Amino acid sequence: MIKPVYEWSHAELEALKVELEAEYSEFSSRNLALNMARGKPSSGLLDHNMNVLDKLENPCAADGTDARNYGILDGLPEMRRFFGEVLNIDPERIIVGGNSSLTLMYDSIVRLMMFGSCGFPAWRSLPKLKFLCPSPGYDRHFAITQEFGFEMIPVPMTENGPDMDMVEELAAGDEAIKGIWCVPLYSNPQGVCYSDETVSRLGKMKTAAPDFKIFWDNAYGVHHLYEEVKLADIFAACEAGGNPDRAYMFFSTSKITFPGAGVAMMASSVNERKEILKHMGIQTIGSDKLNQLRTLRVLKDAPTLKKHMAELAEVLRPKFDIVLKTLDAELKDGAFASWITPRGGYFVSLDTLDGCAKKTLELAKNAGVTMTGAGATFPYKNDPHDRNIRIAPTYPSNDELQTAMKLFCVCVKLAAVKKLCGEF
Amino acid sequence: MIKPVYEWSHAELEALKVELEAEYSEFSSRNLALNMARGKPSSGLLDHNMNVLDKLENPCAADGTDARNYGILDGLPEMRRFFGEVLNIDPERIIVGGNSSLTLMYDSIVRLMMFGSCGFPAWRSLPKLKFLCPSPGYDRHFAITQEFGFEMIPVPMTENGPDMDMVEELAAGDEAIKGIWCVPLYSNPQGVCYSDETVSRLGKMKTAAPDFKIFWDNAYGVHHLYEEVKLADIFAACEAGGNPDRAYMFFSTSKITFPGAGVAMMASSVNERKEILKHMGIQTIGSDKLNQLRTLRVLKDAPTLKKHMAELAEVLRPKFDIVLKTLDAELKDGAFASWITPRGGYFVSLDTLDGCAKKTLELAKNAGVTMTGAGATFPYKNDPHDRNIRIAPTYPSNDELQTAMKLFCVCVKLAAVKKLCGEF
Repeated sequence: MIKPVYEWSHAELEALKVELEAEYSEFSSRNLALNMARGKPSSGLLDHNMNVLDKLENPCAADGTDARNYGILDGLPEMRRFFGEVLNIDPERIIVGGNSSLTLMYDSIVRLMMFGSCGFPAWRSLPKLKFLCPSPGYDRHFAITQEFGFEMIPVPMTENGPDMDMVEELAAGDEAIKGIWCVPLYSNPQGVCYSDETVSRLGKMKTAAPDFKIFWDNAYGVHHLYEEVKLADIFAACEAGGNPDRAYMFFSTSKITFPGAGVAMMASSVNERKEILKHMGIQTIGSDKLNQLRTLRVLKDAPTLKKHMAELAEVLRPKFDIVLKTLDAELKDGAFASWITPRGGYFVSLDTLDGCAKKTLELAKNAGVTMTGAGATFPYKNDPHDRNIRIAPTYPSNDELQTAMKLFCVCVKLAAVKKLCGEF
Repeated sequence: MIKPVYEWSHAELEALKVELEAEYSEFSSRNLALNMARGKPSSGLLDHNMNVLDKLENPCAADGTDARNYGILDGLPEMRRFFGEVLNIDPERIIVGGNSSLTLMYDSIVRLMMFGSCGFPAWRSLPKLKFLCPSPGYDRHFAITQEFGFEMIPVPMTENGPDMDMVEELAAGDEAIKGIWCVPLYSNPQGVCYSDETVSRLGKMKTAAPDFKIFWDNAYGVHHLYEEVKLADIFAACEAGGNPDRAYMFFSTSKITFPGAGVAMMASSVNERKEILKHMGIQTIGSDKLNQLRTLRVLKDAPTLKKHMAELAEVLRPKFDIVLKTLDAELKDGAFASWITPRGGYFVSLDTLDGCAKKTLELAKNAGVTMTGAGATFPYKNDPHDRNIRIAPTYPSNDELQTAMKLFCVCVKLAAVKKLCGEF
């Protein structure tokens, strides 16, 4: 094992820099144009879902409802049953939405802002609003709470989920803190799975705000790459803690069938659901039931879905292997970076040496590989240590990914060495 | 021509009542169960669109974009071009939404409430909000402004659109009045088409609120039943009046292909569009592009759409004929009611004698025919004269419709006679 790079002498660093610059300029000369910025599936993955595009033979629901016409605000009963079966929750909690769970989250914040819930005042009437943001986390979550003027409080992640000591202390001590963003299984970007204890503590913790909300974005709830990781039941945890209305769960088939043409859902207490539907019924007559049928005719039931996800995992696993093997081969010796090996989801999260993430991504971009912007995984895009990078390996082909990862590792090392040489 | 019923003697009324009660009880004995409550297309109409359900052969847009994947917030370029061609507006004004134009309207109010537009303050920060509601009008519009706490001011309709003298006076005199609901072509429920003068006056009128908004719901923009009625260009009118950001236009294919599975759009000034997209980009990654392709592959272009709408009109016209002929045959003599003969759209609006709408619909319901609730066409469901009834002839079969209309006419007459006899 080579000693960590930050223990090297200046002469050693300079020598390595010359070597890395040569490697880097070799990559630069290739005129690469690769985009790994977002968690998009590759076309190879999408090709597995082409039967969703088949002719929709009988546009009627199981109960005979003509899905071509208006109505059924909360979604087809069989669609709710399907989601219930897959996520192991009562369909009576579920509302089927349109194509985007992000929209369901945004609209949930809108409703809480405009109307409040369960008899509590509209959030817009309160002098100050804050939200807990386990970080690194999902930039589109943070963008929503930023849009509505919440002060976002980053909470560090541990291998079991957000630092629960800090979450409990913050939530108990400040009534302006109205909620928390969570991606409880294979978190974006680290792939952290919330432990049973974390789930239980979230459900039962004391919160100064009586209408504190857990935004439980179970985006990767069935996106296992290896063995199936089990997630504890957030609704049961909230009920056990005496806080039955605390959690909103979100899920969609965007990364199961087609992104942007899947079916999204949210779940809540039956109480909350009634209130949400009251407002939703003013906003829409109902979501696209034909697309619900189309999706259901392919995904069918939990066992069929499981098989489908296993097939997708066959395509995804080699991509994660490329990322992790390359990181291991290129960055382990010398301790240039640290990363977590995810067991599912869509991302790998890597920490460079402090102060090197922006420079690393700038180098990569200048050599033709665009990655998620530095800081994106923190509220206000502000990574206090400038070190976290989200690697999104799902979109490129395996060959492209291999090239991109080799270049990326050169950039990580080059940025580190430049930093240690005092160049920036 | 028989003299108007309100000029009849008590004895004449009593005699007619006996006759009508006999007819009514004959209908009651038939155990009818017909629903004419909403503007839903019949399955016969929907059967004309079955090719929308065909296999989607090539899921790529004209420019090669893979419509299966994430992205394209404002919709596929060819979808915007299609809407632009059909509505004769610049595609640069257009944002393609999901399946519901109602949602685009609701979300537009949300944005104005939360953020304001064009540099004007968020509406939620203002002490009082009001909205002009040409009435009779569309209940779902009024439900939105009610949801957000606007004081809704009814404005009477004329044969050329809302009473513009009143609209101008109100809008100029009260800065709390922030907008107006309009269904400018074949208005819901009367089928009124806004005259060129009305459109021009709406565009140029002085408003005390500098950010006054016209919600231009062109829901029936291509739903001609006979000759094509031309609607003046609201954007041109607003620009000519020096108010380029005043109008939001809404449209969808819900009543062209399938309700709830069509494609909705909104249009605005390019200025406004930029702001709307900024917020929309936080709410969603994009709408369902596969459904945009699916819809476009059938509707193709303006001439193809025109042919398609002419085919639908062939199915719809007989329904409107049944309604209008039955009203003419049963209600004209005696002046029991007045109504407008629409040239397109989805409804027929009828006024009973004052104070008789609720009773008429109660009688109809008790005999097995459910119609849109009395008052629904006015803000707060409050028809000050209790006389307006929306007839929605599009859903029942022609036979059912004939029966329902005959019963309905008996109910109109029976309610009138009971009223004049002092029974309620």
